[in-house]
Amino acid sequence: MLRAMATELEDDASNLVDGAMDETALPRPRLEGELRRTAFQLRFFAEVVEDGAFLDVSIDHAGDSPMGPLPDLRRMRVAMGPVGVFGSSNFPFAFSVPGGDTASALAAGCPVVIKAHPAHPATSQRTFDALVRGATSVQAPPGTLALIFGLDAGINLVDDPAIAAVGFTGSVAAGRALWQRANERSTPIPFYGELGSANPLVVTTSAATERASEIGVGLAGSMTLGVGQFCTKPGILFVPATNDGDNVVAALSGALRELPSMTMLTSGIADHFRSGTSRIGDVLGTQLLVGGPDASGASVEAKLFEVSAATFVQSSSSVLYDECFGPVAVIVRYQSNQELTAALSSIEPALTFSVFAGENDTDTPWLLSLGETKAGRVIFNQFPTGVGVSWSMQHGGPWPSTTAPWATSVGAAGIERWLRPVTYQAVPENLLPLALRDNNPLAIPQRVNGVRR
Amino acid sequence: MLRAMATELEDDASNLVDGAMDETALPRPRLEGELRRTAFQLRFFAEVVEDGAFLDVSIDHAGDSPMGPLPDLRRMRVAMGPVGVFGSSNFPFAFSVPGGDTASALAAGCPVVIKAHPAHPATSQRTFDALVRGATSVQAPPGTLALIFGLDAGINLVDDPAIAAVGFTGSVAAGRALWQRANERSTPIPFYGELGSANPLVVTTSAATERASEIGVGLAGSMTLGVGQFCTKPGILFVPATNDGDNVVAALSGALRELPSMTMLTSGIADHFRSGTSRIGDVLGTQLLVGGPDASGASVEAKLFEVSAATFVQSSSSVLYDECFGPVAVIVRYQSNQELTAALSSIEPALTFSVFAGENDTDTPWLLSLGETKAGRVIFNQFPTGVGVSWSMQHGGPWPSTTAPWATSVGAAGIERWLRPVTYQAVPENLLPLALRDNNPLAIPQRVNGVRR
Repeated sequence: MLRAMATELEDDASNLVDGAMDETALPRPRLEGELRRTAFQLRFFAEVVEDGAFLDVSIDHAGDSPMGPLPDLRRMRVAMGPVGVFGSSNFPFAFSVPGGDTASALAAGCPVVIKAHPAHPATSQRTFDALVRGATSVQAPPGTLALIFGLDAGINLVDDPAIAAVGFTGSVAAGRALWQRANERSTPIPFYGELGSANPLVVTTSAATERASEIGVGLAGSMTLGVGQFCTKPGILFVPATNDGDNVVAALSGALRELPSMTMLTSGIADHFRSGTSRIGDVLGTQLLVGGPDASGASVEAKLFEVSAATFVQSSSSVLYDECFGPVAVIVRYQSNQELTAALSSIEPALTFSVFAGENDTDTPWLLSLGETKAGRVIFNQFPTGVGVSWSMQHGGPWPSTTAPWATSVGAAGIERWLRPVTYQAVPENLLPLALRDNNPLAIPQRVNGVRR
Repeated sequence: MLRAMATELEDDASNLVDGAMDETALPRPRLEGELRRTAFQLRFFAEVVEDGAFLDVSIDHAGDSPMGPLPDLRRMRVAMGPVGVFGSSNFPFAFSVPGGDTASALAAGCPVVIKAHPAHPATSQRTFDALVRGATSVQAPPGTLALIFGLDAGINLVDDPAIAAVGFTGSVAAGRALWQRANERSTPIPFYGELGSANPLVVTTSAATERASEIGVGLAGSMTLGVGQFCTKPGILFVPATNDGDNVVAALSGALRELPSMTMLTSGIADHFRSGTSRIGDVLGTQLLVGGPDASGASVEAKLFEVSAATFVQSSSSVLYDECFGPVAVIVRYQSNQELTAALSSIEPALTFSVFAGENDTDTPWLLSLGETKAGRVIFNQFPTGVGVSWSMQHGGPWPSTTAPWATSVGAAGIERWLRPVTYQAVPENLLPLALRDNNPLAIPQRVNGVRR
């Protein structure tokens, strides 16, 4: 079914991309690539299903133990039940109707009810129709997929007693409100929210000395990729207060100034960007380095702010390290590793934590270790924008970047969000699920009496 | 360290058991067995650590994909941070200070702060001292373990910004209140509550025909094991309204009537039992089959109630299927599979779901399937009391039996509660955690480029 859905999306690609261009202002090559990725992701989850490790099968035959005799016990993961999915605005394919939440929940065996994002309703409907064609072509049960529109429908979705779990990609405010609602149900359900993140990025003193221009120019590209509307946009940049650090800032500022004005997904999102950047500028001690007067509508210009680490740490305002969606970043200039540590300690955890270091840089080990406590993905000498679909991807981090720090919304492990374990005790072989039988008819990984097979 | 702790508990066994007898009224053989189990569990988690699969290591080397080039990505689970543990009253060793939550959190690499249960403070202190001796003997870092006492200290524990997750075994009321508190923190944390459960048990018509007496007598033993103070006590029993069903009820009632009065853990717990059973008796249509007038203090007698399935379904009262801690069960008599289905649909999910069926019983498949949706452990022709520590145990179920349906508080997978994944991107080999290196110095399972090794 997942492969049939991928094919349906590809067969309708030019139609889907044209429609998405109209609705999102995203350029054709980006949307074409995103659709390829979305089809790849559906096929990837078909592989994850066939691999079978996601069932986490363990079989213990009856036997003696120091606790006395133990019965035959067999554990596997089963589908939680119908899943609600809230698509995001910024990826009309890869994180919306046919995106990772839908693909992983279907792979887990859960029916999916998708709340369309108001930023691209027609694309939501068209991609949904493609998914339904795929499901129909393989005789999937009716009700495998449903699509709903509107704020009230979304709230009802979270409240519905038939819904067993929710996946959400979007803003901290909306995600946190829905997470709370999921917890206030008479039967609370797991709510997997991939919310906002400032994605801290540290440039060490050595890195600034060795590669100031390369890092500065790269940063300009990374923070404006997709008009800064990536959840992995580097939003807070720690740069040494040295001459070499000045060179990083100069290269970054210069590259940003050469960029034309850009079009955000909607004028509402652009308004949020304008008010968010205005709040940053209002924090005492921040300096605007790049960014002209605000335009109106969906058009914006990249902005760059600078603040000293001392001011940053003293500021009681989280405005400087909350996510501001769009092409903006705040540079924090540090005088010493002590100041850097204090500044890093004051920010909230994130999806990613990037370290740009020099050759044989003695700061690398402690920065990587600190990054591990602050994020779900620790990146070395690369920019954080871009989240590949793979076995080893982690897209999720400690609160508030996500509501469930043990989960990921991208990559193979995303399927685990929609499963819960069940142990079968003393159930005869012919009544057991196929995955738990001794003769292993599905040919999947089984742990038997403690030994992995 | 876990093995040294196990040895310390065993070396102090006679002292620990004597003290626990004073505090809990539990008999010596039971406590001796429970302490053996507790030591076994610590050693079992040492095995889980050495096995290494719990780290869930996946390594994807840099390469091309349909999405374009992907960087080197390596994912593993890391310790969440300091864990708070709330021990339970009913197992002063196995689910208290040195119990499964402590063992699994330490195995995950998390320091543990334990809130002692007020029902056995001295045993809590003595077992804690044994754990500390074990930790000290292997030069574990200071602060690996801490013990706190009192309600306020427990609340502060859940609120403390340094605490990253909480494990709890106890009542629905206390667990739900603390779960809510964990969610109301400025940084909410995972709260793993193993709360109450009525543990439904179904006797099919054929089973009643074939083994009425055996099942009835067995039920009496199971529901009064440990004075009914097991979280897996079968509390709601579905028995056909046939003559054979009458024989099951007669055998159960007869066996219960032969039991002497029993001593609960504390007189407060016995008071709860008396008020809980009184509420059951007050529900219109329930009939008391076994149970004399209420004594006072910690002494109680087993009680058995009966109600028709029709009355049970009509009753808007959850009193009949909420957990009532102690030696009591409610029998629901059903006239047909339709009535049975309606009654089963009206109850809340549980830790266990047991099916007693006959030879070639056509009711078995649908009952096992229904059980899978209602519980974390589905049991065939065996009683649910008793939770073995093993690779395949699942002790947890959908809300309200636990607050996190994907987790277990017993068995190898219990370690997963205290871990979160981190992906390292493009980090040089010599700076990677040992678990993620290509030469696999820890000799643990690694998935490499999608292939399990």
